[in-house]
Amino acid sequence: MAERLTESQIDEALSSLNATLAADEQWQRDGDKITKTFTFKSFIRAFGWMSQIAIWAEKLKHHPEWFNVYNRVEVALTTHDVDGLSELDFSLAEKMEKFR
Amino acid sequence: MAERLTESQIDEALSSLNATLAADEQWQRDGDKITKTFTFKSFIRAFGWMSQIAIWAEKLKHHPEWFNVYNRVEVALTTHDVDGLSELDFSLAEKMEKFR
Repeated sequence: MAERLTESQIDEALSSLNATLAADEQWQRDGDKITKTFTFKSFIRAFGWMSQIAIWAEKLKHHPEWFNVYNRVEVALTTHDVDGLSELDFSLAEKMEKFR
Repeated sequence: MAERLTESQIDEALSSLNATLAADEQWQRDGDKITKTFTFKSFIRAFGWMSQIAIWAEKLKHHPEWFNVYNRVEVALTTHDVDGLSELDFSLAEKMEKFR
C-alpha cells in the first residue's frame, strides 16, 4: 500500500528525479501532482513510448493521467489512494525518463 | 488534402455517426471539435483500444487529441489544417466506434 509522502520527502524525491535533467526538462510540482510535457519526433515515437510506459504502469499498478496530441504527451502523476504523492509517482516518473 | 465541412455537412455526418449509438454514447459537437468519453473495463482494455486506434490514426495521417486516466479516454477530434472539422474526423471517430 502506498504511503503519502511528506513535504520534505517530496522535495527530496523531486530533486533526485530532476538531478540529471536539463532545465527545460524538469518535472514540476503542481499541488498533489507532479507534471511534465514530453515531446517526441513523431506520433509513432510518442505513442511507442506511451506503450512502453503503459505496460510499466500496469506492472506497478499505478497509472498516469496523460494527454496526447501528435508528438506531445502531457503527464500528471498523483496517488488518489493517499490524496497526494507517493513513491509510486516517482517510480513511474523514473520509468518515463528511462524509456524516453 | 482535407476539406472543411460546412455546418450542414457536419450535422449530417454527426447524425450518421450517432445513428446507432445509445443516448449516453453519442458524440458531441464542441465548436471545431467532436468529442466523446470512452469508458472501458480496465486500463488494459482502454490502452489496448488506444493502441489499435493509434495505428489507424497513423494510417489515416490524422491524429486524435486524447486524455487517458485508468479506464477512461476522453477524445477530441478536429482538423487543424482546415481550422474546423473534416471527413477525417468522422473517419477516425468511426474507427473508434468499430474497435471499442
